[in-house]
Amino acid sequence: MNHALAVALIQTASEQTPADNLARQIARVREAAADGARLILLQELHNSRYFCQVEDPALFDLAEPVPGPSSETLGALAAELGVVIVASLFERRAAGLYHNTAVVLDSDGRLAGRYRKMHIPDDPGYYEKFYFTPGDTGFEPIDTSVGRLGVLVCWDQWYPEAARLMSLAGAELLLYPTAIGHDARDNAAEQQRQFDAWRTTQRAHAIANGLPVLSCNRVGHEPDASGQSPGIHFWGASFVCGPQGEMLAEAGGDEAIVHARIDMARTETVRRMWPFLRDRRIDAYADLSRRYRD
Amino acid sequence: MNHALAVALIQTASEQTPADNLARQIARVREAAADGARLILLQELHNSRYFCQVEDPALFDLAEPVPGPSSETLGALAAELGVVIVASLFERRAAGLYHNTAVVLDSDGRLAGRYRKMHIPDDPGYYEKFYFTPGDTGFEPIDTSVGRLGVLVCWDQWYPEAARLMSLAGAELLLYPTAIGHDARDNAAEQQRQFDAWRTTQRAHAIANGLPVLSCNRVGHEPDASGQSPGIHFWGASFVCGPQGEMLAEAGGDEAIVHARIDMARTETVRRMWPFLRDRRIDAYADLSRRYRD
Repeated sequence: MNHALAVALIQTASEQTPADNLARQIARVREAAADGARLILLQELHNSRYFCQVEDPALFDLAEPVPGPSSETLGALAAELGVVIVASLFERRAAGLYHNTAVVLDSDGRLAGRYRKMHIPDDPGYYEKFYFTPGDTGFEPIDTSVGRLGVLVCWDQWYPEAARLMSLAGAELLLYPTAIGHDARDNAAEQQRQFDAWRTTQRAHAIANGLPVLSCNRVGHEPDASGQSPGIHFWGASFVCGPQGEMLAEAGGDEAIVHARIDMARTETVRRMWPFLRDRRIDAYADLSRRYRD
Repeated sequence: MNHALAVALIQTASEQTPADNLARQIARVREAAADGARLILLQELHNSRYFCQVEDPALFDLAEPVPGPSSETLGALAAELGVVIVASLFERRAAGLYHNTAVVLDSDGRLAGRYRKMHIPDDPGYYEKFYFTPGDTGFEPIDTSVGRLGVLVCWDQWYPEAARLMSLAGAELLLYPTAIGHDARDNAAEQQRQFDAWRTTQRAHAIANGLPVLSCNRVGHEPDASGQSPGIHFWGASFVCGPQGEMLAEAGGDEAIVHARIDMARTETVRRMWPFLRDRRIDAYADLSRRYRD
C-alpha cells in the first residue's frame, strides 16, 4: 500500500460566464495532474461567480442536474487523467428544489457520490438560504480509489459535528470546497480575526479527528450586483493540513495550485498517541441533538 | 450591567508538599485580586505535582473530600476578596471512588458547584484512568456572581462535544484548568505540533460557540518518580481568547499571572454575525452518540 497521496487544490478567480470558468478549472486540473496530483479539490461553486450576494430568481438558471453536463465533463476528465476530482456544483434537483452539492468523480470517471451541503448560511452577502435547500444526504463519506473522502462544503467548516460524523463513518480525509472573503466595510482587525478563525476552526477538525484537512477557497474581488455592498474580496489561502492541524501547504491571495503529499499512515500514528475516539462520553452526548438546552 | 469582566489565570510550578502549593495559590490569588481580577482560574490539580506520571495506590492519599479542607479554604478566600475562584482538586468521593474535580467558589464563599472531569486520558506519563473515575456530572455550567461558567478540565479540551454542550446550556465562558507539557523524548517539531494543536483546539471551541475561553496550565519540569521517562516539562502558555478565538492575553513558560478584560457583550455581537447555533442540523446529529458508525 502506497501511503503517500499527492493532492492538489485549485484556487482561482471567477468570470461571468460559466463556460469560461469550467474551462479554467479543466485546464488547471490537467496542470495539477501533470504535476502528479491524484486527488484534486476545486473551490465552491467554481462554475460561476459567487451569485449568492443577491437574491435573484433568474440566477437559478445557473443550476444544472447531477448527473449533468458538468459532472459528466469532469468525470470524463477524471477518467482521462486517472485522478479523483472533488467538484462543487449548483444542483437542480426539481423545480424549486436546488442544492449546493459537492460531487466526487472517481479515477474511472464514475460519479462516486455526492454531498449536499447540510449547513446553509444566510448573512449579508451570503444569501444562501434563498438558493439552497438544506442537504438530505446526511454526513456520509464517499469511497474512491484514493480513499474514503469526508466531503463537506463551506459553512459546514464551522461545525465540529459535521467533521466528527464524517470521521466516525471512517473518513480518511476531510475536504472543504469553500467561498469566503473579506467585506471591505470591516476594519483590518476584524478581517484578520475572521481569517484566523476560518483557518483555526478547520485545523481544529483535523486535530479533534486525527485527519488531514483540505480546504479550497476562491480568490479575487466579485462585485455585488445590487450595489448594496462593496462586494466580497475572496481571500484564497487554500490549505492542506495534517492530522495534528499542522500546515502542509498553503496558498496566498492569488490564483494558485496548492500541491501537498499526505502521509495516509499518519492518522493511525497520531490516533494511537491522541486516542480521542476512545474516550468520547457517548453516554452524555444526547443533548447535542437539541437546539438549545433550555 | 457592566460588560467588562476582569479575569486572571494563575500559572505556577509545583512543589512536593500540598500545603506549600496551596499556600502559593492563595498568595497569587490575593495578588490577582489586588490587581483587579474578579474571576480567577487555577491550574489543574494545583495542590500537588502532577502525580499521574506513575500508578501508585499510596498517592490516593493526596485526595480529599469536596466540600473539604481546600474548598473551604478557597471559599473563605473568595469571600474575603470578593472574587470567584475556579479551582481543581483530587476528590475522594468514597473508598475506591475518586474524581478529577473542578470546584467553583463564588464571591460569597459558597461552593457554587463542581464539575467532575468527564473525559479521562490515559497515555504514557498521564495515567489518569488509574486515579480518576469518569465524571457523572455531565456538562452543566455553574452559575456565579460573574456569570454562567462552562468549567471543563484538561483532556476535555480536545472534545468539541464538551464545549458545545456547555454553550447549549448557556455557558458564558469556557474555562479549562489543565496540565500538559512536552516529553523530552519527542523532537522539537513534534513538540511544536502538540503545542500548536493544544492552542488551536481550544481557540476553535471559542469560535464554534462564540464564547471566550480561559485555559490555565502549569509550568516547570516534574520528574517521573518511576524513572521510566524523563518526566514532563509543563509548557505554561496559559491564555485567554475572545469569542472569535482571538488572543486577549497569554503567558510564556514561566510562572505568571495572566490578566485579561473580557467584553461579555461581544458574544451577542459575534453570534449575530456568525449564527452557528441557528443552523445546526440537529435532525442529523444522532450518530454523535455512537462510538463509531460501523
